[in-house]
Amino acid sequence: MSERTYKFDVKMTCGGCSGAITRALNKAKDNKEVSSFDVSLEKQEVVVKSGLGYEDILEKIKKTGKEVRSGVTVE
Amino acid sequence: MSERTYKFDVKMTCGGCSGAITRALNKAKDNKEVSSFDVSLEKQEVVVKSGLGYEDILEKIKKTGKEVRSGVTVE
Repeated sequence: MSERTYKFDVKMTCGGCSGAITRALNKAKDNKEVSSFDVSLEKQEVVVKSGLGYEDILEKIKKTGKEVRSGVTVE
Repeated sequence: MSERTYKFDVKMTCGGCSGAITRALNKAKDNKEVSSFDVSLEKQEVVVKSGLGYEDILEKIKKTGKEVRSGVTVE
């Protein structure tokens, strides 16, 4: 399965916000749905490397209830 | 379907945290899975009235990535 890297602009206002997304993506990593990810509160950015499609990853982030301002497939 | 009221102690550190849970529960309300709910950042409390079981509601809150410290069925 070829992998893609997705970058999302997500509204996070505190460490609790970024921590919530980190926990959700860690679960997806445990399930092997996500290979790696990085959540940056400072940059308001969530970068995810996965074999899943853009919409699937977007849906996972949205499940946290966080507002996703935009997202792109970077590679 | 008889309804129950559940009360959860959830770690929320800012309005973004409580807003995320509110958005997730609003979706469940739109789906008619939840009748009503109240999220209080100040009290660190999420109260949910639903015909679903305790575990189902707990799972919905956990999907947001927030830490649920404890939960009870109050009525």
